Amino acid sequence: MKFLYKRSSQIDEKELIKQMDFLETYQSHLQDVISIGGYEADEASINLPSDKKLLENILEMVEKKKSTNLKYIIVVGIGGSNLGTKAIYDALYGYFDTLRADRFPKMIFLDTQVASVLSNLKILLSTVSSPDEVLINVISKSGSTTETMANFEVVFEMLKDRFSTIASRVVFTTNEGSKLHEVGNIKNISVLNLPSSVGGRYSIFSAVGLFPLALLGVNIKKLTSSAANMRDMCVNSQGFENPSLVSASILFTQSQQGKSINDNFIFAPELESLGKWYRQLMGESIGKDNKGITPTVSVGSTDLHSVGQLYLGGPKDKTTTFIYSEAGGEEILVPENTLLGLIDMIEGKKILLIIKAIIEGTKLAYAKQGIPFMEIVFSSINIAEIAAFMQFKMIEMMYLGKLFNVNAFDQPHVELYKTEVKKILEG
Amino acid sequence: MKFLYKRSSQIDEKELIKQMDFLETYQSHLQDVISIGGYEADEASINLPSDKKLLENILEMVEKKKSTNLKYIIVVGIGGSNLGTKAIYDALYGYFDTLRADRFPKMIFLDTQVASVLSNLKILLSTVSSPDEVLINVISKSGSTTETMANFEVVFEMLKDRFSTIASRVVFTTNEGSKLHEVGNIKNISVLNLPSSVGGRYSIFSAVGLFPLALLGVNIKKLTSSAANMRDMCVNSQGFENPSLVSASILFTQSQQGKSINDNFIFAPELESLGKWYRQLMGESIGKDNKGITPTVSVGSTDLHSVGQLYLGGPKDKTTTFIYSEAGGEEILVPENTLLGLIDMIEGKKILLIIKAIIEGTKLAYAKQGIPFMEIVFSSINIAEIAAFMQFKMIEMMYLGKLFNVNAFDQPHVELYKTEVKKILEG
Repeated sequence: MKFLYKRSSQIDEKELIKQMDFLETYQSHLQDVISIGGYEADEASINLPSDKKLLENILEMVEKKKSTNLKYIIVVGIGGSNLGTKAIYDALYGYFDTLRADRFPKMIFLDTQVASVLSNLKILLSTVSSPDEVLINVISKSGSTTETMANFEVVFEMLKDRFSTIASRVVFTTNEGSKLHEVGNIKNISVLNLPSSVGGRYSIFSAVGLFPLALLGVNIKKLTSSAANMRDMCVNSQGFENPSLVSASILFTQSQQGKSINDNFIFAPELESLGKWYRQLMGESIGKDNKGITPTVSVGSTDLHSVGQLYLGGPKDKTTTFIYSEAGGEEILVPENTLLGLIDMIEGKKILLIIKAIIEGTKLAYAKQGIPFMEIVFSSINIAEIAAFMQFKMIEMMYLGKLFNVNAFDQPHVELYKTEVKKILEG
Repeated sequence: MKFLYKRSSQIDEKELIKQMDFLETYQSHLQDVISIGGYEADEASINLPSDKKLLENILEMVEKKKSTNLKYIIVVGIGGSNLGTKAIYDALYGYFDTLRADRFPKMIFLDTQVASVLSNLKILLSTVSSPDEVLINVISKSGSTTETMANFEVVFEMLKDRFSTIASRVVFTTNEGSKLHEVGNIKNISVLNLPSSVGGRYSIFSAVGLFPLALLGVNIKKLTSSAANMRDMCVNSQGFENPSLVSASILFTQSQQGKSINDNFIFAPELESLGKWYRQLMGESIGKDNKGITPTVSVGSTDLHSVGQLYLGGPKDKTTTFIYSEAGGEEILVPENTLLGLIDMIEGKKILLIIKAIIEGTKLAYAKQGIPFMEIVFSSINIAEIAAFMQFKMIEMMYLGKLFNVNAFDQPHVELYKTEVKKILEG
């Protein structure tokens, strides 16, 4: 993963130095969190990638639950409980699922409550002939998330009469000591824990993400070791050598100058869900006390034909992060002799080259319009790069919380609507 | 479709009356466009839903191209050429495609250029045993969209050696007289035209949307007649009786008061693509001359667990449009006796009732926080309601363009990056 910002004439390094100086004390604190280890601190999620015991626990559970005929991993969880896993699944497999009906195991995500999804799932599950074909992973830190509990109960009901051993195909991931943990023990359902200090949006490298991904076949050693390397860079490197520090300083400085939106313009549609994971990370971490930046996700080149006009010609209220991959799919070419011959300049060219030209042209247009932007470049779309990106962004958000002077680890306003919902459902 | 705004204490009807008065002349102009008919005016797209000849042409082409073993409708087009069709497909079928691998025909959308999508598509197309199983609809108003032409040429190359008659399974949709139209005639490929005055983002009720949807089996008579009814209401009704007029006035008034973002909070994930269609409509229509509102799409209840914190606790820079359905999937219930018994208040309840409680709770929280919102309520998620929504929004955008004093029908800044891309590809 490369982080770049120099192509944008709008970014003033002197301003950044001020912010980076201010963050020095906090940077030392992050270094302390790592050297002390454990899961006491608010920032303790940064200790996950180097937690060997955790990795062992996960691999042990995978060993117990894996099966050669596994077809559907049903991930029941919402928000921080599924966005990271979905980001990685979609990047590597999910975006292509409709084109590859024969590839297994598939992940099915149940987050919000959609009756028509559940009816269709019922039809799908009626084709399952052995409990080994299914694994249900229920993820709820608190163990009392309404949508998650309701979805699990509905799915369990669909399977329990046909398969008496279906409970052995369920794994709960929750805080130690939660009600879900307790009930899991009583009902003889496997439980994985995550540290209670690790909030949902920082939990991708805990059991929340590692278990379902490992079961899917993702190399979680590679994943965590790449995250650990990025973590060390974002915690230990000084000044402009530190991508999280620079990125947080840019986002803060630009927001003080009226850029209230951070558009993540991703030129790889399979990474759209990764953008949505980031949306929660930024939204919940710094969107409070009437402060914050609104994160948006755009997909290139599609959205150049959609909101591109607004971005280039509308209000100058955005800082853009371009995200793209340097390589991938080199083998696909436009034919030398096309049927229609309508656009000479693409004949015989690699698809990758065309999309790179579009990205380059877009950056030039942004620069000419004076729209500030950063770039995050993946060497290719693979698990190590995605893990590095996620760790980079989580540490960026901790720095950004300090700059905004907000608590990057709570989400007090989420209770507002939950209280109202509870009153209605009980009333 | 119902349009509501009275639950929000932030909306001042006196302000709206000013805007609606200002729009009177323009409203008469829209009435004239309908009574004159034809496709001369910028606003001519409003004549599409009542164009009987168009409907006949489409149904005739469907008759020629339909086949009982049709499996894949490949829609090759980007921006206005596919967003509307995708919105309707995803609402009715696409969102459930991974759960229903056996349901056909499926639509495959090729918009941007993704090498890995094309490699996977190649594998899929190798399973096709007869040309009748495929229909390729290439949609480009200008007939010279880079991504579209490149994607078509790559897909055609995959099929042409195996099936000598594959050209008969291709339909071009383009402006009369475009290069694509010309080449289609030369190569004996079927061509459908759309009026050149109808821009991509206003083209869903032209051949652009109607042909692929009719081929899929959507009742396009019902679709257009519902759109025509809504059109009449949004052009002929006065003042508060006219949903487009009220909605445009609210969006404009709120934007003058610092609400620079219009969040479309959709409590039905299968309508997310409909939100993306709207994103283009608003982005391209009024995002110019340094003016505009940034449209965002949120999915409930998922995003309550993501950006909900930001929306309720962050900067007050948004006007929200809640979009949801009153009915659907009544048959799915949480069991009376749940396995875990963790949340008493959901036991034995309909899923629909739980999600309604969440929507209601969210609106109460928004009202208490003083966040302005409107509501668009579908009777259920069906083609008539979706068509009505789209017509309502397209006319809303025409009114909004007038209020912002911008041309709602051009997109001058899109050329900026295209020029740069062209230089790079040619260089």
